[in-house]
Amino acid sequence: MRNMPLSGARLWADLHEIARIGGTPRGGCNRQALTDLDGEARAWLRAQAGALGCTVLLDRFGNMGLLRPGRDTTRKPVAFGSHLDTQPTGGKFDGVLGVLAGLEILRALHEAGAETDAPLLLVNWTNEEGARFSPPMQGSGAALGVFAPETVLDTRDPDGARFGDELARIGWAGGDALPEMAAYLELHIEQGPELERAGLSIGTVTHALAQRWYEVQVTGESAHGGSRMEGRRDALMAALPLIAAVEALALEHGGRGTVGQLRIGPGSRNVAPETCWFSVDTRHADEALLERMGEELRLYAREVAEARNVAVEVRDFWHSPGQGFDPRLCALIRDAAARRGLGAQDMPTAIGHDAVYVARRVPTAMIFVPCHGGLSHNEAESITPEWAEAGLLVLADAVLAAAGRHP
Amino acid sequence: MRNMPLSGARLWADLHEIARIGGTPRGGCNRQALTDLDGEARAWLRAQAGALGCTVLLDRFGNMGLLRPGRDTTRKPVAFGSHLDTQPTGGKFDGVLGVLAGLEILRALHEAGAETDAPLLLVNWTNEEGARFSPPMQGSGAALGVFAPETVLDTRDPDGARFGDELARIGWAGGDALPEMAAYLELHIEQGPELERAGLSIGTVTHALAQRWYEVQVTGESAHGGSRMEGRRDALMAALPLIAAVEALALEHGGRGTVGQLRIGPGSRNVAPETCWFSVDTRHADEALLERMGEELRLYAREVAEARNVAVEVRDFWHSPGQGFDPRLCALIRDAAARRGLGAQDMPTAIGHDAVYVARRVPTAMIFVPCHGGLSHNEAESITPEWAEAGLLVLADAVLAAAGRHP
Repeated sequence: MRNMPLSGARLWADLHEIARIGGTPRGGCNRQALTDLDGEARAWLRAQAGALGCTVLLDRFGNMGLLRPGRDTTRKPVAFGSHLDTQPTGGKFDGVLGVLAGLEILRALHEAGAETDAPLLLVNWTNEEGARFSPPMQGSGAALGVFAPETVLDTRDPDGARFGDELARIGWAGGDALPEMAAYLELHIEQGPELERAGLSIGTVTHALAQRWYEVQVTGESAHGGSRMEGRRDALMAALPLIAAVEALALEHGGRGTVGQLRIGPGSRNVAPETCWFSVDTRHADEALLERMGEELRLYAREVAEARNVAVEVRDFWHSPGQGFDPRLCALIRDAAARRGLGAQDMPTAIGHDAVYVARRVPTAMIFVPCHGGLSHNEAESITPEWAEAGLLVLADAVLAAAGRHP
Repeated sequence: MRNMPLSGARLWADLHEIARIGGTPRGGCNRQALTDLDGEARAWLRAQAGALGCTVLLDRFGNMGLLRPGRDTTRKPVAFGSHLDTQPTGGKFDGVLGVLAGLEILRALHEAGAETDAPLLLVNWTNEEGARFSPPMQGSGAALGVFAPETVLDTRDPDGARFGDELARIGWAGGDALPEMAAYLELHIEQGPELERAGLSIGTVTHALAQRWYEVQVTGESAHGGSRMEGRRDALMAALPLIAAVEALALEHGGRGTVGQLRIGPGSRNVAPETCWFSVDTRHADEALLERMGEELRLYAREVAEARNVAVEVRDFWHSPGQGFDPRLCALIRDAAARRGLGAQDMPTAIGHDAVYVARRVPTAMIFVPCHGGLSHNEAESITPEWAEAGLLVLADAVLAAAGRHP
């Protein structure tokens, strides 16, 4: 499919053009979901797609579908896309790359006068970021039945504005349902450092890691900093081996373990803490090993509680099941990378994406391209034009292979 | 000196009467320095002392001295006292016990028509707590030359009110200087659990621990909770052994070690921390060993920095030198407790008191009595009438032994 006029340069120009909508002085983007700027970006995309003969579909959650007919009207569309909303101090590529690469594919097909057997559907999911309205991935979650529709529409932002009202206010509440999809492919920046470190430009994302998050509360007794060490029930000192265990268990079982929040009380320099609370984020490709990490943490918590004469509570906070991606689509991605001569590796996504929700109902896979230093959700997020083009080519090849291209 | 009409019951009644000035619904006191309530408590004390034939002295920092003449006009007064100000959620005994026990001594001498060779001076020091105006112990610090006068008078509270202005506003700015003291004795609740645990009612405070406070800043690199464990530079995980070392060094060297404040950043559940900052409070009776604890912490910090590929900075934050109390006064306290049949032990104060500043210039000692559970700076702070009386008797005996009583 090398004869199709796919242009990395045009994609790169698009990325920088749309980045002006909500562009920040530091070169990032602040284009949060359901703001006027989100509406502007949507209008820009609609205008581009209209010129390419696509039908614009809009569902009640604001998810946009740009439908390009196929030869075979009985086939369900092959879908691809991502999201145009950003974090408040977001970058130019997170989400946007997947949508604009999809647009470039539609544009190239249009210019080539080419057809596909299956229809194509470029999707811009509403509120992937979850920055203004929480949780994230509400558009894909609602469309795929993960969330109840009213729950999503009734979500409030921190100022009390309602999701459904804000969607209507910016003029992007629709009445269509997106068509059932035959497949879904999402190109996204890695948001991690592994591809860049490995010197590769393509990641074939084969699955999403399962996640279990916990909260640990250690309660001892506060003591004045001048009191004897003997008999202290210092909650922080008791918590230390448990925090260390989060890392040790991840290393031992080949998973991930992070303590990202921690608070001690009463929080005075000369008072040994009565309480220590911390969050635990564990991830693993294997659900059983992930559970085992949690069980071992709980066992260890009991030992620490006894040894230190403190109370330790390990509470379940959140569980996100693992999600395998479609092996056939993954194979198409690997093939495309190989044919294009692009260095690639299989890898999981350890981060939520619209594709993870879509995969519950639709054969799905993701393509990662590197981003510098793994930096994302940051105005300094950056990629090279070569990485963007590599992602574009692999996405195009995989989409067209799945949809069947003519000529 | 058992024939003097010292009354524990009267002291107990006084403690509860003055506790109504700023009394809180939970049975504590909120009588912060230089508030109207502080003024009310001072007026109450002045009225009591006036009835006992004392001269009321007031210095420019608001320190009150109630002077009872002695037979020998060439002798400097034997002083005793503490403070009437409280924490915002303070108790009824911290500081107040020492002042009111002193008042009861003056009252009993007055009733007995007894005289002392040396004059007696009951002192109510201004702003011991440092709750509203910081640092603590400003009145004694200013009077003893630890702080420059203008520095204290120009201190601002969080609302911007000036120490000197507030002192004048409540009508307690004076022009006297307190007389030079021959000795200073301070009765205080222990604010720790040791006497109660040991079943003793008197602590002979022989010295104040030296203190060195540090701040430790660990800087690594943030990483998404989904990223591989290998290559992480997690600031919290790197900090764990250093925090543990604060406890271990205290145990090893017979000192005290506390990490009472800790903050990690950026502080998101799914982000391995880039930064970990924590406070370190170390104390020891032996200055050299205290220094060694700090040196070993710094050495260990370097090892951790190398092993974890993070930056670790250990900054000096505060140093309070150790302060020995006067052996002769300590002996008077021990003798008094023994004669009264009260269980006593020698102990350090690990906490700042006015006596620690006074001791820089004047032979000084402190008497501790237990408080339940070591609880202080808390509305639930409590002591028994028996402990209060034990403190009163020992203070009286020591004061009169130092001053020389007739008959």
